[in-house]
Amino acid sequence: MSQDIQDILKKSKSSLDLAGLRRLAEGSLAAPEGEDADAWMGLVAPALTEVIKAGLRDYRSRLATDMPYSHGSAAWERGRVDSLRAELLRRGIAGFICPRSDDHQGEYVAPCAERLSWLTGFTGSAGLAIVLAGRAAIFVDGRYTLQVRSQVDCDVFEPLHATEAPSSGWLAAHAPRGGRIGFDPRLHTPEGLARLREGAARAGAELVALEDDPLDAIWARRPPAPISPVIPHPERFAGRGSAAKRTEVAERLARDGHAAAVVSDPASVAWLLNVRGADVPHTPLPLSFAILHADGGVDWFVERLKLDREVAPLLGNQVRIEAPSALGDALARLGARRARVLVDSATASEWIQARLAGAEVVRGQDPCALPKARKNEVELAGARAAHLRDGAALARFLAWLAAEAPKGGVDELEATAQLLGERRRGEHFRDTSFDTISGAGPNGAIVHYRSTPATNRRLAPGELYLVDSGAQYLDGTTDVTRTVAIGVPSAEHRDRFTRVLRGHIAIATARFPRGTTGSQLDAFARRPLWEAGLDFDHGTGHGVGSYLSVHEGPHRISKLPNVVALEPGMIVSNEPGYYRTGAYGIRIENLQVVTPAEPIPGGERPMLGFETLTLAPIDRRLIVAEMLSPETRAQLDAYHAQVLAVVGPRVEPEVRAWLEKVCAPL
Amino acid sequence: MSQDIQDILKKSKSSLDLAGLRRLAEGSLAAPEGEDADAWMGLVAPALTEVIKAGLRDYRSRLATDMPYSHGSAAWERGRVDSLRAELLRRGIAGFICPRSDDHQGEYVAPCAERLSWLTGFTGSAGLAIVLAGRAAIFVDGRYTLQVRSQVDCDVFEPLHATEAPSSGWLAAHAPRGGRIGFDPRLHTPEGLARLREGAARAGAELVALEDDPLDAIWARRPPAPISPVIPHPERFAGRGSAAKRTEVAERLARDGHAAAVVSDPASVAWLLNVRGADVPHTPLPLSFAILHADGGVDWFVERLKLDREVAPLLGNQVRIEAPSALGDALARLGARRARVLVDSATASEWIQARLAGAEVVRGQDPCALPKARKNEVELAGARAAHLRDGAALARFLAWLAAEAPKGGVDELEATAQLLGERRRGEHFRDTSFDTISGAGPNGAIVHYRSTPATNRRLAPGELYLVDSGAQYLDGTTDVTRTVAIGVPSAEHRDRFTRVLRGHIAIATARFPRGTTGSQLDAFARRPLWEAGLDFDHGTGHGVGSYLSVHEGPHRISKLPNVVALEPGMIVSNEPGYYRTGAYGIRIENLQVVTPAEPIPGGERPMLGFETLTLAPIDRRLIVAEMLSPETRAQLDAYHAQVLAVVGPRVEPEVRAWLEKVCAPL
Repeated sequence: MSQDIQDILKKSKSSLDLAGLRRLAEGSLAAPEGEDADAWMGLVAPALTEVIKAGLRDYRSRLATDMPYSHGSAAWERGRVDSLRAELLRRGIAGFICPRSDDHQGEYVAPCAERLSWLTGFTGSAGLAIVLAGRAAIFVDGRYTLQVRSQVDCDVFEPLHATEAPSSGWLAAHAPRGGRIGFDPRLHTPEGLARLREGAARAGAELVALEDDPLDAIWARRPPAPISPVIPHPERFAGRGSAAKRTEVAERLARDGHAAAVVSDPASVAWLLNVRGADVPHTPLPLSFAILHADGGVDWFVERLKLDREVAPLLGNQVRIEAPSALGDALARLGARRARVLVDSATASEWIQARLAGAEVVRGQDPCALPKARKNEVELAGARAAHLRDGAALARFLAWLAAEAPKGGVDELEATAQLLGERRRGEHFRDTSFDTISGAGPNGAIVHYRSTPATNRRLAPGELYLVDSGAQYLDGTTDVTRTVAIGVPSAEHRDRFTRVLRGHIAIATARFPRGTTGSQLDAFARRPLWEAGLDFDHGTGHGVGSYLSVHEGPHRISKLPNVVALEPGMIVSNEPGYYRTGAYGIRIENLQVVTPAEPIPGGERPMLGFETLTLAPIDRRLIVAEMLSPETRAQLDAYHAQVLAVVGPRVEPEVRAWLEKVCAPL
Repeated sequence: MSQDIQDILKKSKSSLDLAGLRRLAEGSLAAPEGEDADAWMGLVAPALTEVIKAGLRDYRSRLATDMPYSHGSAAWERGRVDSLRAELLRRGIAGFICPRSDDHQGEYVAPCAERLSWLTGFTGSAGLAIVLAGRAAIFVDGRYTLQVRSQVDCDVFEPLHATEAPSSGWLAAHAPRGGRIGFDPRLHTPEGLARLREGAARAGAELVALEDDPLDAIWARRPPAPISPVIPHPERFAGRGSAAKRTEVAERLARDGHAAAVVSDPASVAWLLNVRGADVPHTPLPLSFAILHADGGVDWFVERLKLDREVAPLLGNQVRIEAPSALGDALARLGARRARVLVDSATASEWIQARLAGAEVVRGQDPCALPKARKNEVELAGARAAHLRDGAALARFLAWLAAEAPKGGVDELEATAQLLGERRRGEHFRDTSFDTISGAGPNGAIVHYRSTPATNRRLAPGELYLVDSGAQYLDGTTDVTRTVAIGVPSAEHRDRFTRVLRGHIAIATARFPRGTTGSQLDAFARRPLWEAGLDFDHGTGHGVGSYLSVHEGPHRISKLPNVVALEPGMIVSNEPGYYRTGAYGIRIENLQVVTPAEPIPGGERPMLGFETLTLAPIDRRLIVAEMLSPETRAQLDAYHAQVLAVVGPRVEPEVRAWLEKVCAPL
């Protein structure tokens, strides 16, 4: 085999040696499989022949049989917990805290960072386990209380509700007096540790940072870090060059008296450097850290193997590319200089802040967060174009659904596949922006539902079907939810849907003065439900990136206090809902961009409003027209007229005919 | 003279000696003059003859001619600042920070604590001066930027806007390197000092706490601390005995692991001990501190001379009465015991926290704040009764205004006097709950306007008149604003008024789930204004006490984040407005109490709503009926029907006839 691949490597004119090729191929296996399974080969060398490509493909597929590269592919074994306890004993440590987060505190983590699922078997997107000598527990939020019981061995891990039986209280009750409880400082922020520390202290125990994670010693057959191509995000999509962004943010740092900022959110690094990657599912970013200096220079800590050959020349010599392992020393140098360094309190780990010892560490907001959130005109034009394509895909999908589902032959997974197929037809399509939520009947009431063959359900007449999905296009990220009646809906379905719609339209049509936060607007979305003694238990809206994360701060629309004002160019979702457990779920979600509002005669203050980006019909069969005020009715009719006018010309005649029907005035 | 008063004192059978009587009489002169100017004599002895009363009255009035007991009665002199600088020089201090607050951080301060107005001449309710060797500045908020220029000598104090040119930045720019800037630690909270400290540090200077305030050394003819009778607040108004309150709060302290709490808000002390006083204007409380121990015992630091003889026996031996000067030692004893002590982060001064050195100081919420805010059934019955009386007074006043004002013969001060006269007729009336805001035409646009002979304005036909007023009744505190048209209002008046009304009704009729904060509701009050490009620059609602402070936390309705949920029994104002500077002001204010909402068929969650307490007609001539939805119109008609039904029977036939007219359905 190695003879073979040596030969292929030589013919490819790659600068890699065999070890490098193997690292690249294995790393690519640990990255999510994108639309183009051969994309990794671009990192071997440019312009490969089909023969070489076939050889590389064959080489990599042989490696794949040998290793569990993907999430949860190896079954959980109780022995892992025994090994951890043995390792702790060896080190004289009384316990270990294992969170779900990786060293970026991100939403998606790579297989090599799936510590919690490796240790416990639990695959949810949030959770924390604590292992002591004699007992262990896993803490999950309300979304996962059922799932955790089906995935973990409850004899090994006591499953607990993170807010009702918090981990700090559990530590206070069970940590041994005088015991040292270890944690990996790369995986926790100081804020996140504060309560755990306090809980341990109440038991007379203490938390200790472990420079080497004990899981590293016992995790056999651990996947490598993902390697996927880092490519330039061209200015025709980004709207501004990286140099201009770096100058702007650096000037702000200088003005605030900071010598540097640690950029620990990989989405911010991707925005700042105008690069994109594919290290985690659905979010086109490379996992990397950066230090931005007040002179505009950047130290970028990224695996060199990942870099498309166009990247480094484009960035120029103001951006110094360093190995990820060099981050610690770079932080220590800032500390030795006693520099004033800004770190992001939400994503900068305890380890980063400890490595900065000596520096004047200022915990604040990621300096890229606000400029990233304020989309420029090019990004907004891209978002509008992406939403047009997405709207056409949705129209085709919904028309298909309207024709097929009432026959009773469509299930959740089939609908998901159909929608993906329609989106794939669109220019610049790269990925879905998250796992599609395709919930029929009672499955629609599970807010973070993911359809699996085991849960897959027929879309049955008389039930509601909720589909929440989105796409990553090179020019923009989409996220949309529609709830449709399969057959004839009930009076209750229609009442609840109309209330959700009224809340949705109250947000969409809000005008508000500059300085207003999403927290101030949130109740507009809930009032029609409140009037009937109802509510929903999630936020009303989240920020959305530009071909980047579908969940992006720092703004949001939520009942939780948020002091970030909505500003022109910010994209935010508007997604009130209503859920009746065991019966049905309703959610109506559009993306909107904050815009200056039309001046009103007699108006005294600069006002803002929203421009709706998402273009898809809202199921009129679910609307009780008499429950809408004349203004609200007119606003809905205007939206439908716009959908028909702009999406209609982009779809086939039969889809257009269907659109005409469902977009008719109420 | 002393012969005379010796004789009177002897005849009165008082236990006071002459020095005690003089202290009492002088202290009473430094307290606000209440409805009963002779109330202080009750502290001399019970059951005085008219002859003795006349003698005491005469004695006190002779003392009054000798001393400037009331606010701002002595003209400001530049020499005061020179004296302060000399005193600072003597002490080797580079500057001094003089805030408006007293050692309770309260809204009203006694004359002896009017440091800022004594030093600068500025009489506003908020501000801060800093005096350095060569320059001085005074910092005020937006309400006072005009007033400060008319009151202070701008050659001595540079007047600055507290948010645009903050004091911390001024210190950073002007404090001398290495200099020590003094402050009185009793007058600042640690939070309040943090920014000043940081500003001084930027200049290389430092803040130092001065155990003795330098103003004490230079303020000649300073008024004494106020002395006014402290009387029991009987259970028929308070609804719960003090012992029960103390037990409940102490149990909570014990549960949270606190050994004691320092109660530094005098309103909380008054609530906890069921006492009332008259040390400051409009808020019937004695200035005092208390320490509540987890065993339910209380150390109450209060001037003994103030105590009505019924107070101590009623409180029993669980409440130990101590001199105000004993507080420091009591705090030090907690420190020496290394006790865990809760202090209120909003009102506990740096001095209190320094005196607790050694204790485990936990900064949190005043433990009385929430139980005080949740009014019990007796307090709510009292509030309803007080509002009925207040409603009758308002009806009489508004009927008089409707008859007299169009003739052009009424001015702001006369209207204020007329309203006070009507309120005085009501049972249990004790005081106004704040200085009445009586603003005609453009004066109505000044949010914190106080009418004076210099600003007094005729209520002119074609203009609006805004009157914001309230009363302290033994059974409840009121606060109400009405805006009325004098003659025929303009189309703009009516448009703006109708928008304010829609916001007001949107708050009044809101239903919301338990756990909802006032911050979440705030935008309901603003949306109708936002739709026209308008807004108002104050909060929508504040909490209100029960025969206590008209501004009471911890809840409020505001766009500023507030994490305190609205709970049944909380009283809150609902007062959106609109102000056109130089032209007119509009505000509509009712008090409301949070109540469990009527269950709704199909409702799933326990919901809350509001019961409106205030009963006074809203000027129908200012309402554009077509701008109201049918629901809103019905809600307004229902309110007016209720006003007529409950206030009508309590007023004279001609007032009732007027009420019938103005309460007719739209």
